[in-house]
Amino acid sequence: MEKLIEGFIQKDRMALSKLITLVENDSPESLDIMKAIYPLTGKAYVLGVTGPPGAGKSTLVDKLIRNFRSKADGVGVLCIDPSSIFGGGAFLGDRVRMEWAYQDDGVYLRSLATRGALGGLAPRVSEIIKLMDAFGKEVIIVETVGVGQMEADILRYADTKIVVSVPGLGDQMQALKAGILEIADVLVVNKADLPGARDVVDDLQMMLYLRKDSDWTPEIILTEALHDRGISDLDAALERHRTFLGQSGLKERQTRLQREHACYRAVEEGLKNYLRESFLEAEEVKDIFRRVQEEGLNPYQAAAEILQLLFSKTCRGR
Amino acid sequence: MEKLIEGFIQKDRMALSKLITLVENDSPESLDIMKAIYPLTGKAYVLGVTGPPGAGKSTLVDKLIRNFRSKADGVGVLCIDPSSIFGGGAFLGDRVRMEWAYQDDGVYLRSLATRGALGGLAPRVSEIIKLMDAFGKEVIIVETVGVGQMEADILRYADTKIVVSVPGLGDQMQALKAGILEIADVLVVNKADLPGARDVVDDLQMMLYLRKDSDWTPEIILTEALHDRGISDLDAALERHRTFLGQSGLKERQTRLQREHACYRAVEEGLKNYLRESFLEAEEVKDIFRRVQEEGLNPYQAAAEILQLLFSKTCRGR
Repeated sequence: MEKLIEGFIQKDRMALSKLITLVENDSPESLDIMKAIYPLTGKAYVLGVTGPPGAGKSTLVDKLIRNFRSKADGVGVLCIDPSSIFGGGAFLGDRVRMEWAYQDDGVYLRSLATRGALGGLAPRVSEIIKLMDAFGKEVIIVETVGVGQMEADILRYADTKIVVSVPGLGDQMQALKAGILEIADVLVVNKADLPGARDVVDDLQMMLYLRKDSDWTPEIILTEALHDRGISDLDAALERHRTFLGQSGLKERQTRLQREHACYRAVEEGLKNYLRESFLEAEEVKDIFRRVQEEGLNPYQAAAEILQLLFSKTCRGR
Repeated sequence: MEKLIEGFIQKDRMALSKLITLVENDSPESLDIMKAIYPLTGKAYVLGVTGPPGAGKSTLVDKLIRNFRSKADGVGVLCIDPSSIFGGGAFLGDRVRMEWAYQDDGVYLRSLATRGALGGLAPRVSEIIKLMDAFGKEVIIVETVGVGQMEADILRYADTKIVVSVPGLGDQMQALKAGILEIADVLVVNKADLPGARDVVDDLQMMLYLRKDSDWTPEIILTEALHDRGISDLDAALERHRTFLGQSGLKERQTRLQREHACYRAVEEGLKNYLRESFLEAEEVKDIFRRVQEEGLNPYQAAAEILQLLFSKTCRGR
């Protein structure tokens, strides 16, 4: 573990990958990893990109990476597919387009398939961002598909959130517009050469009137990512939002909230680890689980017994 | 609380609704509620229904409710929209079709909007099923949209899982087929009067060859739910699967696993409650959180301190 952290600090990409995997899999070492790398964090600008399938997000992200690489030393990209179709091949296929980026040592790409929301584990988005940040990535792009609540949650950790739309979304436009009200800082209408682009802009503008927070009005940017058009406009809009975040004090407030949230989650994680490691294997607990399974002991009654045991065992050990 | 439980036992639907709301919202009373009602559970047959939007699931469920009502005293229906589009109006709109069911005292309908998977809370599907079960619903239908991992997780608590497809799904058929491999016990091809129904059946049959577990081969049933066609075939297939579950011992095995899972979750919940109620409000802990927020204290270091405090406080109190 110490060797991995050392490698990480020496900018060994393999060490970064291994640490991300450990954190992603909720390994018991996660908290120690995060504690060790935390002092190195806090420098990255995190950009979130979402939108419905087919909006051209991958191409746009591709162009954004190139753009940021001309200004920043390192760019990290985290791709998350929250719809997590069984197997989820389509999304990874998209990545082929970014092959050039794999050749560029300054770009670090990582794909994350979310495990199911229920019962499964939430992906450690915020922790992975922190790992890339600590590694020295100055810009981190988090890309996800869709405009549902889950995507909004994923993008919670982004400083600036881009929602990408395209002409011809039909019914999906309604969901998109609702999503926009909640999360977008910058609105991109991609494939702006398609018919109907003007209607999309009008639609979005109508929505923005309904938006309540008045500190920042999302800008609408027309792009044709495939033809490199509109990227510098988008870049300028991002720059303006970043400046706004700093000057308004919003960045500072968000950072504080994220720190508190990280701490709270770490406490919960720590408790779970304690439960798993030093307790659930205990014979008395196994016996209670056996009675639940075989003798039909009320599992909620059993849980209360287990908690009692947990506390008394913990305290006896002190 | 005692009054609510008493009302629940007296078959007061309002009490059922209130208890579900408490459990759904993870209120601190959840564990006590579940402990109290658990002895009444274990009688219901739980049927899961999923499939892509537009497959006619609501109409099919409507017919299934009518069908079960002719045999069972009480039917519970839990509708879950895991895509949880902001606001999520469309799904509720579907419910209008079931208006008749609201008039039938023997039918209990409940819609659940899932909160985000990350950071948000997973819906208490298994607990809500148990509440309906304990209330005396002999059949419980869990309906959800989509065929992703999340839907599979939701349907984990169903005895029999129906995946509904329709002709003309196009690209969605691929995801559907992958999903089918994992979860379906019965395959319904709805709107079987549409052109292409035969192709869908052929497609599904091909998929079934690839399925590994050989104990049960999913049946393919053609329906036209809107015209009441195929419902009795479906009913017979469900009956066969239910018999299989009993005879093969699978039902028993699933029940044991579910009991263990419930117990494990209850332990985690209990710990979280303990953390929230008796601890996070403590001055020492608030002070650590303040240092995280304002002084930039490493949140993972802070978490370790908080856990130390938790254990020593807990043990001092004993």
